[in-house]
Amino acid sequence: MPTNRRNFLKAAGALTAAAAVLNPAEIFAKTFGTKINKSKKMQLSFIPYTAQLRHVFRISHNARTSTPIVLTRITYDGYTGYGEASMPPYLGESQASVLAYLKRVDLGQFSSPFEMEDIISYLDGITTHNTAAKASVDIALHDLAGKIIGQPWWKIWGFDASKCPNTSYTIGLAEENVVKQKTEEAAPYKVIKVKLGMGEKTDKMMINTIRSVTDKVICVDINQGWKDKHYALDMINWLKERNVNMIEQPMPVDMVDETAWLTENSPLPIIADESCQRLDDILKLKGVFSGINIKLMKCTGLFEARKMVTLAETLHMMLMVGCMTETSCAVSAAAQIAPRVQWADLDGNLLIANDCFSGMKIVNGKVTLTDKPGIGITKTDKNINFEA
Amino acid sequence: MPTNRRNFLKAAGALTAAAAVLNPAEIFAKTFGTKINKSKKMQLSFIPYTAQLRHVFRISHNARTSTPIVLTRITYDGYTGYGEASMPPYLGESQASVLAYLKRVDLGQFSSPFEMEDIISYLDGITTHNTAAKASVDIALHDLAGKIIGQPWWKIWGFDASKCPNTSYTIGLAEENVVKQKTEEAAPYKVIKVKLGMGEKTDKMMINTIRSVTDKVICVDINQGWKDKHYALDMINWLKERNVNMIEQPMPVDMVDETAWLTENSPLPIIADESCQRLDDILKLKGVFSGINIKLMKCTGLFEARKMVTLAETLHMMLMVGCMTETSCAVSAAAQIAPRVQWADLDGNLLIANDCFSGMKIVNGKVTLTDKPGIGITKTDKNINFEA
Repeated sequence: MPTNRRNFLKAAGALTAAAAVLNPAEIFAKTFGTKINKSKKMQLSFIPYTAQLRHVFRISHNARTSTPIVLTRITYDGYTGYGEASMPPYLGESQASVLAYLKRVDLGQFSSPFEMEDIISYLDGITTHNTAAKASVDIALHDLAGKIIGQPWWKIWGFDASKCPNTSYTIGLAEENVVKQKTEEAAPYKVIKVKLGMGEKTDKMMINTIRSVTDKVICVDINQGWKDKHYALDMINWLKERNVNMIEQPMPVDMVDETAWLTENSPLPIIADESCQRLDDILKLKGVFSGINIKLMKCTGLFEARKMVTLAETLHMMLMVGCMTETSCAVSAAAQIAPRVQWADLDGNLLIANDCFSGMKIVNGKVTLTDKPGIGITKTDKNINFEA
Repeated sequence: MPTNRRNFLKAAGALTAAAAVLNPAEIFAKTFGTKINKSKKMQLSFIPYTAQLRHVFRISHNARTSTPIVLTRITYDGYTGYGEASMPPYLGESQASVLAYLKRVDLGQFSSPFEMEDIISYLDGITTHNTAAKASVDIALHDLAGKIIGQPWWKIWGFDASKCPNTSYTIGLAEENVVKQKTEEAAPYKVIKVKLGMGEKTDKMMINTIRSVTDKVICVDINQGWKDKHYALDMINWLKERNVNMIEQPMPVDMVDETAWLTENSPLPIIADESCQRLDDILKLKGVFSGINIKLMKCTGLFEARKMVTLAETLHMMLMVGCMTETSCAVSAAAQIAPRVQWADLDGNLLIANDCFSGMKIVNGKVTLTDKPGIGITKTDKNINFEA
């Protein structure tokens, strides 16, 4: 029984010749001159890339002007999926470590990109860490499989794209006049994210300066910067009065009891970032944090991220999706889970000057997904050549 | 960028006329004379059905010769998805309660079957119970969405179909000579399931009788029949020596501490059935049972079942998939998660004389999935008419 157009085309004997003529991979290759792997064997390629930041980026103990990236591509049966690893230096991965990892990956042993459970389990078993490197393969796999299916992952997962939240736009530590200028530049965004934890005077200057320009909602990321729970609670009460609506990772990862006390007493939700890397971390965070921040570069990609959404929702924990400084490739992948989260911090592609993909867009401040299949991206930089 | 055949067809202007001619729903309707809902509004239909059992079926406190069923169908955009509710009387649902529930369902408020999170949440909110009724809509939705995608759900979920286990085949309580005969009839199946808990003498007669015919693996389902943990452990040790490899629901649901003790001391895995209805039950079963038995009629369908797989795997609990006496429709739906389970008890369709669908097959004793989209079924009984 013909149940969809593709099966119908296969079944309709009279149309065999027409169907052969219509092979989209062939026509695409002829038109655009791209080499396409038509075999039913997955081929992984990868190239290093450097994301140039629009502004110098500062967090608690760090400042930088670029982020090292590795771009990945998997071809199979005429389809192409793209992926990405982003390696902010403080997370311990580098282009060298990612390339070394990717050289060990042999996807040829799997018969199709749909064997996700087995492939993801294989990728995870190659090394103990390398979560960004693993994510770069996972993302390309999802882009590939989604394109074969012909649907975006948010839709395959049953999510409602209209429920995506606004993204926050990060304003880094700077002098007062620079903070004012950046706040004005953030006009298109409805939520501002500020990284605090630099001491009370600096933290309050940051908030007061932003508040001198706008009253829009602020999310605050402490990056483990507070060491005293009573001080933390005082600060949170001060922040709440200034229309801050959540606090990310206020205290160090090992201060579990103090964080649980803070979450119990805080008038604002407390979200785990450094405390929550992967699926297996979530269970022990119930009762410690109000919710978790899912980042593909920490959790090895979309396959595990999807499971983290299920687990956190089952535990009645809140959800946030974040990113590193990344191109629209990895940001669009992360955006696939955005319909299920309360906060999205998906400004990674907005912070870089040389984005080489187009994909998820921020429209009126809101994460806006399209019906484009896979992770919904197009490679826009023709100079990026995986064949080189 | 054309990324798959359907998108390509849409994009290729020159082919517009041809694509219009090829509308599979229209051609299918012309060829086979079926009324097809071509609108982009989902239409739900349902009819009562009675599954006739091949053998009288006995469990602890019950015997019956038929099972009441309600079949469902959702049409949308030229596609058709089928579903089913099965109501063994001891579970509290009936054709009347399912039909009453289904009359309250309004799918027209949703714009597509892909809005699964919202639709499933809406279905669950209509009433407190009615899990089989809810499953009948969930299954039809998955069949429909999978057909639009053009892939079976096991594949969309990233599972490896070759990892499906053997199904067990249930032998009900009967006289010695009947048990022998049924054991011989079970020759095509590699695992036998026996429902015990009728008293030591009867239970041992059942096992000894089967063992007089075959040494194949036996799974034992107690249906809460044991009330003493020490007796239960003695019986489990006796059963282990006779090549039994798992014990399902040995003690009553409310004997939680006793079951936890039994699981800790048992040489065989202890699997929750009556103790595990839905996703929210699983967390409190960690440490009480070794694993859980997922049944679509208890958990409201595939959407929740998929989440239960994720949660149980995250908790390192074992998995079983079971069914009621059902047609190949609901059994094939349940089989979509079979690649992730250690035990499958998917003989529901084998136990009935008037199966009106064909779908998942047992090949050499093993659950065998196909590449057919959705839940992989075909309606084989032309007398079943949803238009009546």
